[in-house]
Amino acid sequence: MNKQQNILIIGAGLCGSLLALRLAQRGYNVSIYEKRPDLRKVKMSAGRSINLAFSNRGNKGIKLVELEEKIKALCIPMKGRMIHDAHGNTFQSNYSGKSHEFINSISRRDLNVLLLDEAEKHENVNIYFNKKCKSVNFEKTTALFKDYSTQTEFVEDADVIIATDGAGSAMRKSYYLEKKFLFSFSQNYLSHGYKELSILPKTPGEYQLEKNALHIWPRGDFMLIALPNLDGSFTVTLFLSYHDGKYNFNNLAEENDVLEFFQNEFPDALAIMPNLLGDFFKNPTSPLGTIKCTPWHYKGNTLLMGDAAHAIVPFYGQGMNASFEDVVELDNILDKNLSTWEEVFQTYEHQRKQDTDAIADLAVDNFHEMKDHVANPIFQEKRKLEMAFEQHFPDAYASKYALVTFNENMGYHEAMLKGRAQDKAILNLLNDGVIAYPNTVNLKTLKPILEKVKTETNAILDDNRIAGLNY
Amino acid sequence: MNKQQNILIIGAGLCGSLLALRLAQRGYNVSIYEKRPDLRKVKMSAGRSINLAFSNRGNKGIKLVELEEKIKALCIPMKGRMIHDAHGNTFQSNYSGKSHEFINSISRRDLNVLLLDEAEKHENVNIYFNKKCKSVNFEKTTALFKDYSTQTEFVEDADVIIATDGAGSAMRKSYYLEKKFLFSFSQNYLSHGYKELSILPKTPGEYQLEKNALHIWPRGDFMLIALPNLDGSFTVTLFLSYHDGKYNFNNLAEENDVLEFFQNEFPDALAIMPNLLGDFFKNPTSPLGTIKCTPWHYKGNTLLMGDAAHAIVPFYGQGMNASFEDVVELDNILDKNLSTWEEVFQTYEHQRKQDTDAIADLAVDNFHEMKDHVANPIFQEKRKLEMAFEQHFPDAYASKYALVTFNENMGYHEAMLKGRAQDKAILNLLNDGVIAYPNTVNLKTLKPILEKVKTETNAILDDNRIAGLNY
Repeated sequence: MNKQQNILIIGAGLCGSLLALRLAQRGYNVSIYEKRPDLRKVKMSAGRSINLAFSNRGNKGIKLVELEEKIKALCIPMKGRMIHDAHGNTFQSNYSGKSHEFINSISRRDLNVLLLDEAEKHENVNIYFNKKCKSVNFEKTTALFKDYSTQTEFVEDADVIIATDGAGSAMRKSYYLEKKFLFSFSQNYLSHGYKELSILPKTPGEYQLEKNALHIWPRGDFMLIALPNLDGSFTVTLFLSYHDGKYNFNNLAEENDVLEFFQNEFPDALAIMPNLLGDFFKNPTSPLGTIKCTPWHYKGNTLLMGDAAHAIVPFYGQGMNASFEDVVELDNILDKNLSTWEEVFQTYEHQRKQDTDAIADLAVDNFHEMKDHVANPIFQEKRKLEMAFEQHFPDAYASKYALVTFNENMGYHEAMLKGRAQDKAILNLLNDGVIAYPNTVNLKTLKPILEKVKTETNAILDDNRIAGLNY
Repeated sequence: MNKQQNILIIGAGLCGSLLALRLAQRGYNVSIYEKRPDLRKVKMSAGRSINLAFSNRGNKGIKLVELEEKIKALCIPMKGRMIHDAHGNTFQSNYSGKSHEFINSISRRDLNVLLLDEAEKHENVNIYFNKKCKSVNFEKTTALFKDYSTQTEFVEDADVIIATDGAGSAMRKSYYLEKKFLFSFSQNYLSHGYKELSILPKTPGEYQLEKNALHIWPRGDFMLIALPNLDGSFTVTLFLSYHDGKYNFNNLAEENDVLEFFQNEFPDALAIMPNLLGDFFKNPTSPLGTIKCTPWHYKGNTLLMGDAAHAIVPFYGQGMNASFEDVVELDNILDKNLSTWEEVFQTYEHQRKQDTDAIADLAVDNFHEMKDHVANPIFQEKRKLEMAFEQHFPDAYASKYALVTFNENMGYHEAMLKGRAQDKAILNLLNDGVIAYPNTVNLKTLKPILEKVKTETNAILDDNRIAGLNY
């Protein structure tokens, strides 16, 4: 584990480039191989600046490499959800009752460029583009690449290989296909896919919707969302079933079908999307999948990180944040000065796996919650109550969403257990008439309600613990 | 869906041969292709007659094909678990407080022979051995086979292909590898593997242990079990971690290690296992895996059934029973006279999938329960109480084990929800001192305890339902 060791990273996406930067700061010799061209040298068309939700856990990784100030310039704060109903009415629902708790829209490309630029400032970092990893020999710690420029194949040797090559990871495929050890693996698709669309600026830089919000058009079985970009555009994503319901990706085959669908369901969005049909038929429909696996590492030779180890669906906005937190967690373990990479990787997986499993499950839960509970009055009353708790007792209450998104020092697994227990407590106390949203909302009226919620939450956690349940 | 259609079944194991027999009874033309030789023509060595737990759900399939009487001759009733402690003391714990509720040990080979013989009595059934399925073209409804006798490959066409080719299903691999539709898939291994051993008869037909019991040597992190065979032998299975603990499969490398392990942990078993070392080093160590996937079918062309669709770990003794229940469920749907195979397969999967997912999860739960709770007094008190409930209130109470094993008209999923809620209720009521195992056990002392358990169980189910939880 001396600092002159050569670390080969497969994939120069967000996780790989942050990891490379951090390992370079720690003194390792880092080579990154990326199958795509250098995105700093490739033009992207207008309205195609895909963005992501960047929040507290992601920021831990950014702080680690001391880029907090530079990132801020790329971020558009989103204080809450702007809900658009079927008649075009809107109302805002903040992410938290605490004003300093919000999430950010950030361009995947801008963030990746920054991380690559910063990594390349280190002379112990080399980045190679257009080199696609085809397989990894995890016993010899070598990787086979195809050079897209020359159409030749070559093998690279390293002391350690870390694959951050995303949900379709080539190294994970080698783990799976080689059958040299017992590899637990799952890929689980939702019934729904997604398609990216866009709302362009009215004039350059002029937003057609409220800039500082994540816009949602929830319709139960499907929904549209929009996140702002720095250029005044919004990236819009349609989540829709492949096969089921009156409208689905399979039967939206003709231009008129798509127009009718948007006219009926999203009229206010359609009015500012003259480019809808072009986007709809040009852009692919992509699946929504969860990937889990174990072990992530083979001895001390190779390690999967980021989406390569745990791809999740986007309904908590935590994909990139979880990957950045991976880098922070690995870095913490490197601080322990363990004597072998095998110990590092084992410790890392042992500590991290339950958290990435939890955020994967939470994200799928949220897909169902958004579909099923959007019209459920008891869920809406719960949300109102939680917002009031967060406003009036900022230090004493955090909702499941806030535990996951804003309480970055609590692991996802603990956030899941506590968040689920709180939800269950509030829903049942409301249902049983033990509590209700007060007519007058103030510290005095809320306090006894919060106490009941806390007592019930703890009782639920105790009951589960005694029964040996861990979910 | 006319009755002259040709149905090709891949795999002549237990599920495939029961399915073939039932479809033949319904009038279809059935061809089965099996990769192994005809087991009726192959000799097996003494002590290698691998056996299985056969219980009520499996018997539903046997009743369907009217073989109940013939099966009985192959069954050895096991009334309960015979627990062997580390000092060689034994005590019996019945499977149920109801005397007619027991499970059976049955030889996999004898059962398979019976089903093959019965299937072959139908002239519309043809069975081909030594034909290994290599892949399935599910769009053309053809299968590629390799003939092990001639070493040639050939393609078979059919109206419908049903794969019952077990956990390593070739058709499931085709679904996975072809990537022509979104295929959700998981393979999850436990930390433990298993190895088959044997206890031979003292003299032919003379059992060295109680015949009518499933013997268990529970040791927390590992265990030995033994099931009786008709010839007086027992098939013994060692469940042990691959890597962890003082003793594990990785470090039991020398004869002395194995002897020391058995001497320290299973001295009474060792005394009747002179053949231990031969068995141990001859027989493979095999993994314990759970497989889930969806969809099981491709249009109306192909369908996965049995272990090919849902392989489970053996800790509930339900693997074969679940596969036989698959045949019953499919048969029920054929009774509906739907107009296409696609509707049949869709309806079947829609009804069946949540139940096979549930038994898969229950079986993994039981692995952990057996490891973690063997020395937990509150779990033991729960078990005593449940036995008393079942004895004194046979119509009013069934434990989770009994719901799964003996209540064959309740689906696995409902059994799981109810069984888990009951467990949680009893454990918490005991822990909180609300109930206790009575000093005098009779109808009068048990009745109020049972009422409290039922009330609490219903409250738990209600609370979960209100919170939208389904586990």
